[in-house]
Amino acid sequence: MSTQPQAGTRLDPWYGSYSQRTHGMRASEIRALFAVANRPEVVSLAGGMPNIADLPMASIADAVADLLRRDGARALQYGSGQGDPVLRGQIADVMSLEHINAHPDDVVVTTGSQQALDLVARIFLDPGDVVVAEAPSYVGALGVFRAYEAEVVHTPMDAHGLVPEALDEVLTQLAASGRRAKLLYTVPNFHNPGGVTLSLERRPRVIEVARRHGVLILEDNPYGLLGFDGEPLPALASMAPDDVVYLGSFSKTFAPGYRVGWALAPHAVREKLVLASESAILCPSNAGQLAISTYLSQFDWRGQVKEYRRMYAERRDAMVGALQEYLPTCSWTTPEGGFYVWLKLPEGLDAREMLPRAVTSLVAYVPGTAFYADGSGAGHLRLSYCYPTPERIVEGVRRLAGVVNAEADLVAMFGTAPSRTDGVETPGPATP
Amino acid sequence: MSTQPQAGTRLDPWYGSYSQRTHGMRASEIRALFAVANRPEVVSLAGGMPNIADLPMASIADAVADLLRRDGARALQYGSGQGDPVLRGQIADVMSLEHINAHPDDVVVTTGSQQALDLVARIFLDPGDVVVAEAPSYVGALGVFRAYEAEVVHTPMDAHGLVPEALDEVLTQLAASGRRAKLLYTVPNFHNPGGVTLSLERRPRVIEVARRHGVLILEDNPYGLLGFDGEPLPALASMAPDDVVYLGSFSKTFAPGYRVGWALAPHAVREKLVLASESAILCPSNAGQLAISTYLSQFDWRGQVKEYRRMYAERRDAMVGALQEYLPTCSWTTPEGGFYVWLKLPEGLDAREMLPRAVTSLVAYVPGTAFYADGSGAGHLRLSYCYPTPERIVEGVRRLAGVVNAEADLVAMFGTAPSRTDGVETPGPATP
Repeated sequence: MSTQPQAGTRLDPWYGSYSQRTHGMRASEIRALFAVANRPEVVSLAGGMPNIADLPMASIADAVADLLRRDGARALQYGSGQGDPVLRGQIADVMSLEHINAHPDDVVVTTGSQQALDLVARIFLDPGDVVVAEAPSYVGALGVFRAYEAEVVHTPMDAHGLVPEALDEVLTQLAASGRRAKLLYTVPNFHNPGGVTLSLERRPRVIEVARRHGVLILEDNPYGLLGFDGEPLPALASMAPDDVVYLGSFSKTFAPGYRVGWALAPHAVREKLVLASESAILCPSNAGQLAISTYLSQFDWRGQVKEYRRMYAERRDAMVGALQEYLPTCSWTTPEGGFYVWLKLPEGLDAREMLPRAVTSLVAYVPGTAFYADGSGAGHLRLSYCYPTPERIVEGVRRLAGVVNAEADLVAMFGTAPSRTDGVETPGPATP
Repeated sequence: MSTQPQAGTRLDPWYGSYSQRTHGMRASEIRALFAVANRPEVVSLAGGMPNIADLPMASIADAVADLLRRDGARALQYGSGQGDPVLRGQIADVMSLEHINAHPDDVVVTTGSQQALDLVARIFLDPGDVVVAEAPSYVGALGVFRAYEAEVVHTPMDAHGLVPEALDEVLTQLAASGRRAKLLYTVPNFHNPGGVTLSLERRPRVIEVARRHGVLILEDNPYGLLGFDGEPLPALASMAPDDVVYLGSFSKTFAPGYRVGWALAPHAVREKLVLASESAILCPSNAGQLAISTYLSQFDWRGQVKEYRRMYAERRDAMVGALQEYLPTCSWTTPEGGFYVWLKLPEGLDAREMLPRAVTSLVAYVPGTAFYADGSGAGHLRLSYCYPTPERIVEGVRRLAGVVNAEADLVAMFGTAPSRTDGVETPGPATP
């Protein structure tokens, strides 16, 4: 770079060329943590990786090989931008378990439901638009909204999920201040990271409030079928199909490696999503889609989901039991499904500042601050029970208790614990 | 939708909520045409689908099954946002054939190279920024730049590719008018749709001009290894690694169905690309990446590329031979690789207006207008020889000649051919 007229730097000659949105990009806390969590001696209660070790891998291998032999010229070719029609029909069947009556035409297959999030943001959000989202919210969604230069305004949850009256108040205040709320982003089932579920009774009320304020609901539902007891609750999309874009995923009910998720959207919105997706990736992977389609048609996928529920329930029990035993000074949500416990630290403790000590003690978690757009959440942390074995979970909580108790002693002695966050953040892979 | 304050319509209650960029989205001509091209009685010279029928599908099926049996828990799990490290090393080896000396750390694996295009646009383009691109240019790239509300300014090509002096003039004029050119988008090898290749002699001159104007080069190179004779030319990225983001793909050298492409970028740019990709899709498909990685390590992929060259050369010969026989009133480029011939119609003919008659005559092509951001190109069309058999190619050109000659007769008689474009555009799948 010799005479470039824009400002560059020695380390990055193109620094002056980046778009506005790029200057807001930063490695998420979750990303930084994963490098740490990957060390085998650390019990990671940080990541959201599903445990897929018990999938019938040899039979899946045979089925995929058979698919390639039979239909390889199609599996390895370009496909429809909207996604394979047969798979879209199967996705409609999957959603019927949550009372959704969808037409396959209104389904768009995406590279994981993260891409669906990105596409929804792309077609709706201008810089400065507001997204209302639960406090706390999924870190990956916050990242997407930031990438589109939108502002996130949080709305409170309690043990029964999103609070409709509080949502009404937030939206009313936004309107009064002349700000444009375009989307309500919500994870109604087994919330990430909150661990709570929006009650059946509140669902129509949330819809009524959003509708009254002209706000589209973005229902992100990766965990809906992973409830430990009873039947799945009806999705918001089942109650108000014209008011909801629903996002689904096979990452937790089957496996994440094919990166197959989807959006179900009102017809006109679906058309925009397809155009946006064609621009972004041309078309989703046929090989991945047909593998998932084969799995759904040839395997007892409902039985596998039941097996996952049993396995995750056992891990939830291990975590909650260990918390009761080792961390009586904290409080936490007890999830009825999904992957996460949301834990409140004793007064005065800061989850972010405590993290380096936890890592030194060979346990990792995600500090609550990752799940807020406004920097709050330091008094909370997210614990995942999805990936480690029950024994490792108990050991992890035991280690965490040691750290929390030592930290609480410091706070009791000095009023505050000394900061030691510096140097912890290193790059690493992404995860939900 | 009852009392939504924003303007909706009966057909789309969310019409008033879309972002600015969404209002610029439209179905590309290529997309509209594919629905037509898919009818078996039509000879499609329109699409860019590679012919993968001769891949050793049974052996690939065995290798993929073996991969899943051996390493399924990794193949079906989340992976690194940047892409699998082993595959990134193999990609560096592939690029060494074009004299690129890349470190795997500077490679980002994407969902096809289309996603890499999207990510580069995302990190560099603000609304109103200018992208300089060859006239004509790949339709999918024009769509991406439009999606980011950038403006495309074309720069001329001749039989030796991009003209450095003309580029200098375009960039000088842009600077004089106070407009910010951020990227030079170029397909240097076997251009889509132009069919020409940037000569070795011009390559350093293009780099010098871009560098002098502070413009980053976006080198899109899906066809570089598909030259019919001789060795691949050195990539622009091999000559100026700090000034080029290079995009590659396995879609044409192997198969598109796994959707695996990549970007090679200067180190600091690569970091932004990874952050942008994590926001867009979390991570690329491990299953797809490991399948490609397995193919590269266990199969004679260089031999397969040679086989592809032979097969496409034969089809190019069939097309050029048929053009010489049936369409002496037209002129065209004779590509030395890749998939496309760029054809100039006799004076007065309009490729877009002629299309419905061509479809009635059971042959399809892409009108030149699809490849210009400024509405020009009506006197040209793109013919693909990649997918149909040589016999079908000859038959397609014969049909096209009938249409062109009848159209020319009308023009000779009336001065212009009557318009009959209405009703041709119907939605269909995407393709390069």
